[in-house]
Amino acid sequence: MSLGLTACKENAPPKTEPAASAPAPVAAAPAASHGKFEVPPGQLDDYYSISSGGHSGEVRIYGVPSGREIKRIPVFNIDPMVGWGITNESKAIIGTKPDGSLKYKTGDTHHVHGSYTDGTYDGKYVWVNDKLHGRVARIRCDTFECDKITELPNIQGQHGLFTDKRDPVDQSINHTTRVFAGAEFHIPLPNDGRDVNSPEKYGCLFTCLDADSMEVKWQCHVDGNMDLVATSYDGKLAASNQYNTENGVHYEDMMSAERDACVFFNIARIEEAVKAGKFVTIGDLKVPVVDGRAKANADPKTALTCYVPVPKNPHGVNVSPDGKYFVCSGKLSPTATVIATELVEKWFDGEGKEPRDCVVGEPEIGLGPLHTAFDNKGNAYTTLFLDSMIVKWNVDAAIKSFAGDKNAKVVLDRIDVHYQPGHGYTSMGETKEADGRFFNSGNKFSKDRFLPVGPLHCETEQLIDITSDKMVLISDHTAYPEPHDAIIVARNKIKTRQIYDMDEFPHAVKDPKSQTITRNGKKVTIQLASQAPAYSMREFTVKQGDEVTIILTNHDKVEDLTHGFGIPKYDICFIVNPQQTASVTFKADKPGVFWCYCTHFCHALHLEMRSRLIVEKA
Amino acid sequence: MSLGLTACKENAPPKTEPAASAPAPVAAAPAASHGKFEVPPGQLDDYYSISSGGHSGEVRIYGVPSGREIKRIPVFNIDPMVGWGITNESKAIIGTKPDGSLKYKTGDTHHVHGSYTDGTYDGKYVWVNDKLHGRVARIRCDTFECDKITELPNIQGQHGLFTDKRDPVDQSINHTTRVFAGAEFHIPLPNDGRDVNSPEKYGCLFTCLDADSMEVKWQCHVDGNMDLVATSYDGKLAASNQYNTENGVHYEDMMSAERDACVFFNIARIEEAVKAGKFVTIGDLKVPVVDGRAKANADPKTALTCYVPVPKNPHGVNVSPDGKYFVCSGKLSPTATVIATELVEKWFDGEGKEPRDCVVGEPEIGLGPLHTAFDNKGNAYTTLFLDSMIVKWNVDAAIKSFAGDKNAKVVLDRIDVHYQPGHGYTSMGETKEADGRFFNSGNKFSKDRFLPVGPLHCETEQLIDITSDKMVLISDHTAYPEPHDAIIVARNKIKTRQIYDMDEFPHAVKDPKSQTITRNGKKVTIQLASQAPAYSMREFTVKQGDEVTIILTNHDKVEDLTHGFGIPKYDICFIVNPQQTASVTFKADKPGVFWCYCTHFCHALHLEMRSRLIVEKA
Repeated sequence: MSLGLTACKENAPPKTEPAASAPAPVAAAPAASHGKFEVPPGQLDDYYSISSGGHSGEVRIYGVPSGREIKRIPVFNIDPMVGWGITNESKAIIGTKPDGSLKYKTGDTHHVHGSYTDGTYDGKYVWVNDKLHGRVARIRCDTFECDKITELPNIQGQHGLFTDKRDPVDQSINHTTRVFAGAEFHIPLPNDGRDVNSPEKYGCLFTCLDADSMEVKWQCHVDGNMDLVATSYDGKLAASNQYNTENGVHYEDMMSAERDACVFFNIARIEEAVKAGKFVTIGDLKVPVVDGRAKANADPKTALTCYVPVPKNPHGVNVSPDGKYFVCSGKLSPTATVIATELVEKWFDGEGKEPRDCVVGEPEIGLGPLHTAFDNKGNAYTTLFLDSMIVKWNVDAAIKSFAGDKNAKVVLDRIDVHYQPGHGYTSMGETKEADGRFFNSGNKFSKDRFLPVGPLHCETEQLIDITSDKMVLISDHTAYPEPHDAIIVARNKIKTRQIYDMDEFPHAVKDPKSQTITRNGKKVTIQLASQAPAYSMREFTVKQGDEVTIILTNHDKVEDLTHGFGIPKYDICFIVNPQQTASVTFKADKPGVFWCYCTHFCHALHLEMRSRLIVEKA
Repeated sequence: MSLGLTACKENAPPKTEPAASAPAPVAAAPAASHGKFEVPPGQLDDYYSISSGGHSGEVRIYGVPSGREIKRIPVFNIDPMVGWGITNESKAIIGTKPDGSLKYKTGDTHHVHGSYTDGTYDGKYVWVNDKLHGRVARIRCDTFECDKITELPNIQGQHGLFTDKRDPVDQSINHTTRVFAGAEFHIPLPNDGRDVNSPEKYGCLFTCLDADSMEVKWQCHVDGNMDLVATSYDGKLAASNQYNTENGVHYEDMMSAERDACVFFNIARIEEAVKAGKFVTIGDLKVPVVDGRAKANADPKTALTCYVPVPKNPHGVNVSPDGKYFVCSGKLSPTATVIATELVEKWFDGEGKEPRDCVVGEPEIGLGPLHTAFDNKGNAYTTLFLDSMIVKWNVDAAIKSFAGDKNAKVVLDRIDVHYQPGHGYTSMGETKEADGRFFNSGNKFSKDRFLPVGPLHCETEQLIDITSDKMVLISDHTAYPEPHDAIIVARNKIKTRQIYDMDEFPHAVKDPKSQTITRNGKKVTIQLASQAPAYSMREFTVKQGDEVTIILTNHDKVEDLTHGFGIPKYDICFIVNPQQTASVTFKADKPGVFWCYCTHFCHALHLEMRSRLIVEKA
């Protein structure tokens, strides 16, 4: 008898044959020098890509150029890994119904934008929209956790979102103090059952939140449905591209007009109007709502808004890093529209004629243009959804061409992407520090780019080197559906914390040996601590019918020495990171023995890390 | 005025300076030739790695060697991206309370194992455990979706899981028909409030499920807490390594004995005993429970179980690809224990003396050995949690050494991993077709390997080339906490479907123009279809207080042309893939207009894809 482990296929050749079911690789990948962008083991990425996660409800952080997903940040979703939507602390942020259950378990994030100081990221916060339930969430960048969520009143379909970059009133405040949110769906005001069959009475509001308190400061009633939002570097203007300026309620009616608009908001004037009491309120709410509809804003000198016509159903508006231009993409037109910031500001000063005169370029760039990003050399990169391409074009040349220069070479390069790109964004491209290194194409269909995994495919994120004249495809990364927009932030902008501070948690269990059980009628509070590989309390007993609150503080101080706490059959699962405190409350409705255990690997004796919950039969 | 886009940092050098907060790269990465394993754009991976997701509650598919996450499969968690836990179809699989809400929203997956035919993967199913609520889930490999979940009776802490590889009774059945599950926590039997303070009456059961029906066939009462499960290639034996054979209820009592055990189950005998009525039932349940405790199984010739002593608190048991050996790791002992399958089978035949005589090797391999994987050349690779290393050792040499050969060279190589590895697994390593190409180390701590993202870090998956004498680190990949075990499956084993078959859905809305609204008292059923870029119904009206069921069939036939359906304020969000049907039911308790919209990018006019839900005030 041979005692060796000679397997039945010893010396079998490596399995490199194509799978029977795997599609054939696509012809000649255009990639070339991608190897030089590899991030080898032990090396760090140069950038954080902070990305929305669509209807997964989360936000994600990828490393660039590696494409590694370094973190998922649960925001509008429930995540048992961290206990998001399960702990009392996270439920308070998400919001609950009167019975204590979550108000929402779903959400749809599209656009992530950061806080600015002096025209570039300051690494304090990012904000993200929830299109589904009309919310805005804030994420702290020191812990990369959501700390506040605000549900916006009077709106539906909160889609576009951007921060201000400078104060519109006090120019000495050179950092973000406001967050702007554009609503896409027009609804009755208020939406309480009245006017449901009178679409002409529906409205869409643009919302301004205070970046610090996350409270709604004001809203502005506009025509049409808002899509993306962008802001000027001088703080004076916010803008949103719009479709359905027809205010149609059926699909077919939403694209009858030849032109829609990019609407500009004069923030200082809106805030003056609010201060002067020139607003209404809707229903029982106190939020001031100013009238920004075109008819009420015909006189430029008093107008709160300026509707710059652009080809119909535009998708996306982005600002060039020098602050000079807003670029709207055509979507149903093969063009991008370049609007000069200065001319819009002059229009508000009464120095322009028609809003359309603010357009200084409108190059034909390809089919289905959606979003535009910028390098540091005056070039724009627009995703072409229908062409499945990225087009590189020069903004200066586009402006010259629009002015009649037939020799202006507008389109400089095109590259295939795989397939149907949505958003595209460049490294630091939405700041004054755009560095022209990387462009990321967020593609909506991956088709045959990855091993087949059934009917539902992942998306493709393709990283493109934009340092030279020709764009070069570096790599394909996967993304769980459905990422939309992202920002690519240089790593030196982010300063994270490695452990928590116990004093920040008002309910912290400061005694590492705590065995505290407090009873108040049927309410029982259990205070315990974790320290690898044990909980301070080996067992605790409650009575069937008790409302039990467990408060757990992790006394470990070693970075990432996280413990979990799972309670079988009680649907409880959460973690506590080093020096963090978290709590859960549940009704002990099932008698018996329930082994609470550490769900997050912590120590060689992790499996033995348990505490016995005994629920005595009533 | 310059009209160019000359940004303020034109020609700025690429930002390669280290971030102030980013830790310094680790010294001299041991990786070398990793470049040759890069999967360039447009190329496919060679393997699927199907991985548990720990207390995220999900299962994931990574490509190997790229490390790309190609799919998340929601199982025990809620996932608004696909509508898992939201659609009626998924809620029926997860299980609901009498009020229709989900019984559980959390879970803790550890071990994924596939269906076998002739000793290798047949690509039909994988199964995964839920340690938190004692469940086993099945995932179809043609769609990579969970199709059944069974909650196991009489147990808590369902941890180890493995499929059988051949029928133990009818040897002509050479494929998987059973799934074995080992419970970790000992509880009162039944756990209904009785005996809570009498730990001596607690028990732990090993469960056998029917692979097809997912019904529980039988359970076997054992001593100790079960950890991992493994099965023999001849179908005759299942095994589980065990800790706490002391049956202690407090942490300290769980490691007093010098030796714990690997318990072997004689499946054919257990099934004979069940057939002969030699079982008990617990509480009101009808599941037959046989007595597999050591005291009741002292006579080898009738024993259902064999307890082979191994050093205390072992972690993990794995079978060599030739089927000859079960290897238990020491965890608290620096050893691996090699148990000969043949000798265990002989013990059951009465041809052995003591169970310990089945041990044929026990090499010292390093500190904190947890899990062992195999190549096709007779070598084993064990993760060393405390050493943060992988050790490569030869099984044949270990056996010779144990037999007294002082010249046997057991340990062949060691490689550092970063850091604290848990499970490790090789390409096709748990099948007869182990191919000796890749070893993946699932590391529990990533520390400084990736950009800092706050107190909670991701884990590291490190891929190692094992084709030559020296192990070579290829790459570091990230994984959202907390992956445990995985199987690495050659891509030609998997045959997925690209679209659904409409006829498989009993409620399919077959008319692509369906405008059907059916009312039965307060119950309203809306049947509609999707076809890019529109829903068949542009609007539908219900009354406040109605119970509304929406059935949506996607008539698109193009691969991956998926549509979403989100209802603002009603917490509804799900998708329908091509030719799929899904439904949701909710109470229309809020009057007003609610724009149902497509959440999953589908078409250039995706944004316009909406349907207006009008809820008339009661």
